[in-house]
Amino acid sequence: MNAFVSAAAIGAGHQSSFVTDRCAAHQIVPRLPSSNRPRLCPISMSGGPSWSDHVPVAEKPRTLIREDGISGSDTMQSRFESMIRKAQDDICAQVEALDGGKFHEDSWIRENGGGGISRVLQGGNVFEKAGVNVSVVYGTMPPEAVAAASARGVTRDVGYAPGEAVPFFAAGISSVMHPWNPMAPTMHFNYRYFETDRGLWWFGGGTDLTPSYLYEEDAKHFHGTLKKCCDRHDEAYFPKFKSWCDDYFLIKHRGERRGLGGIFFDDLNDRPADEIFKFSTDCTNTVCEAYLPLVERRKDEEYTEAQKTWQQLRRARYVEYNLVYDRGTVFGLKTGGRIESILMSLPLTARWEYDHSPEAGSWEEKTLAVLKEPKDWA
Amino acid sequence: MNAFVSAAAIGAGHQSSFVTDRCAAHQIVPRLPSSNRPRLCPISMSGGPSWSDHVPVAEKPRTLIREDGISGSDTMQSRFESMIRKAQDDICAQVEALDGGKFHEDSWIRENGGGGISRVLQGGNVFEKAGVNVSVVYGTMPPEAVAAASARGVTRDVGYAPGEAVPFFAAGISSVMHPWNPMAPTMHFNYRYFETDRGLWWFGGGTDLTPSYLYEEDAKHFHGTLKKCCDRHDEAYFPKFKSWCDDYFLIKHRGERRGLGGIFFDDLNDRPADEIFKFSTDCTNTVCEAYLPLVERRKDEEYTEAQKTWQQLRRARYVEYNLVYDRGTVFGLKTGGRIESILMSLPLTARWEYDHSPEAGSWEEKTLAVLKEPKDWA
Repeated sequence: MNAFVSAAAIGAGHQSSFVTDRCAAHQIVPRLPSSNRPRLCPISMSGGPSWSDHVPVAEKPRTLIREDGISGSDTMQSRFESMIRKAQDDICAQVEALDGGKFHEDSWIRENGGGGISRVLQGGNVFEKAGVNVSVVYGTMPPEAVAAASARGVTRDVGYAPGEAVPFFAAGISSVMHPWNPMAPTMHFNYRYFETDRGLWWFGGGTDLTPSYLYEEDAKHFHGTLKKCCDRHDEAYFPKFKSWCDDYFLIKHRGERRGLGGIFFDDLNDRPADEIFKFSTDCTNTVCEAYLPLVERRKDEEYTEAQKTWQQLRRARYVEYNLVYDRGTVFGLKTGGRIESILMSLPLTARWEYDHSPEAGSWEEKTLAVLKEPKDWA
Repeated sequence: MNAFVSAAAIGAGHQSSFVTDRCAAHQIVPRLPSSNRPRLCPISMSGGPSWSDHVPVAEKPRTLIREDGISGSDTMQSRFESMIRKAQDDICAQVEALDGGKFHEDSWIRENGGGGISRVLQGGNVFEKAGVNVSVVYGTMPPEAVAAASARGVTRDVGYAPGEAVPFFAAGISSVMHPWNPMAPTMHFNYRYFETDRGLWWFGGGTDLTPSYLYEEDAKHFHGTLKKCCDRHDEAYFPKFKSWCDDYFLIKHRGERRGLGGIFFDDLNDRPADEIFKFSTDCTNTVCEAYLPLVERRKDEEYTEAQKTWQQLRRARYVEYNLVYDRGTVFGLKTGGRIESILMSLPLTARWEYDHSPEAGSWEEKTLAVLKEPKDWA
């Protein structure tokens, strides 16, 4: 279940393994709580991954929710879509201003409803690869899948029959940015909104930093900015979501985190949706302030060939995490998401050396140490 | 279950997620059919992956089966260990002769029994990375795991009680070789033997080829050599195991195979163990004849920068397959195998470009076409 609300999956237009037959509009009676319901269709999964289900469109749709458009509507679905699409524009504009390059944009729709807008800046001046995706996905899933999420605090006990096809809606923005310079850190963020019928909904998201070289002042700025954002909404948020992030981004087989963390939350529905929407919006709009100053500061640092090699070894760890553990990535790959959007999160290049370990007392070893034992930076 | 008998897992000394407590010699009463039983201990999995469980040893043990050595014994365990250790020596010697470089060797033992010998030639003259591992693993698993394999033809119905700790033994050799030259293909092979108590045993293995550029004569030599080897034992083997290989090495999210295939089999126990042992031995000893002439022929081919880039993109597909789908790799990573031995299979470097596709009519496109639609080469 958790995979539905996880990072790359939603942002990259993943589809559900729980979904049923190919769409036939009359098969589904949407029962979403909103009075302005999108037309829901089950996502096709017959015959395995449906890499041909994502149809490119020349012009991006005004809304991904349904053809006749509900922009301006006050449903959370519509408000969330508006928020992430505006954020995509804003963030890409700021990244372009820093990089000097331009994002390439691919819009696509799903045969059975929903779609996405993928933007990638590859081979830029500052960034080797930076992607910012938004997507909206509709489908159905059995209640067992819905129930699987209740362990994490969302009440799902609303009387679904076993095997019943439960309509759901998911929208999200997700992004990874990899700079060229080994002194400039990689950053990932993802914010998403999820709804099923009978009044169930929740938010998830997070923002985290992955440097190859530890600069304490950078870690402090990043975590400090996220903490300030969290504190504007609830002072209990940051400690909880910081710790959740450390737990989530663990590369278990290495016994080390992917990076220095940040914040991560899921299944958030413990207060009015409006409040969590405001929090999600604030988090999304804080990404640039938390991250871009670090890139600005490090993008022209001098570095050695050995330091570039170390960055490449760290990039390989990023690949290991994303392909082995990241719920959204693995789920998206195995259930017919748009592959190129999902794998946009991978670095341009990576390197695996047998049994590499940094020299004792080196900068590399000090960086590795904080990945093994996370610290408080804020 | 299948993961137990899968490629990288055994060769790299993977451990079982089904295994129970930390070893206490008296807890286990081995009931292996052999009269010369190794001391079996359950593998530790409490507390997650046990990356510290693999203890390096300066000198490689005469046998990995037990301290007092049973070399010369006629048990299948002992014969299989002897076979794979001799093959490791022979294959490494031939690769060194071709490359001019030397393999680095790491021997390690598992605290609770078993161990392995990992050999890697990294940054050689011909090979960017070539690894040849042998390992022997003991443990216990519940009968549900044993039963899970019966679907593939091995009778497991020997009256285990639910939850009973079933002792098992697994030994294997596994290898991946990545040459520098984009015209020289990557090759993987793995051969393994598995035993539980009450007379259950089976063999598994395979050899497959992954070129960046298709040379039909190379494909024919490789498949033809494997076919000849299979035909020496059973003419039904090659067609069956060729097709199994095409199915197994499918990168589902791409709709393409990892490479041109070869042979793959698992759960093989449909005739006397002696016969299958001879077949496994023949397959293992045919690897060099099938593969090294291709490297010899292509290692000095001229190539362009664009061709090197295409090789790097194909290397990334290799990473995707191994980290997302390969049962042995994923299982080994998640259950405490020796990480560096498992990930020796990954290329030295790889590259992910957003939405790359080869030009129509190009050599790259023709190569991709046979990964999408496997052909008969033998």
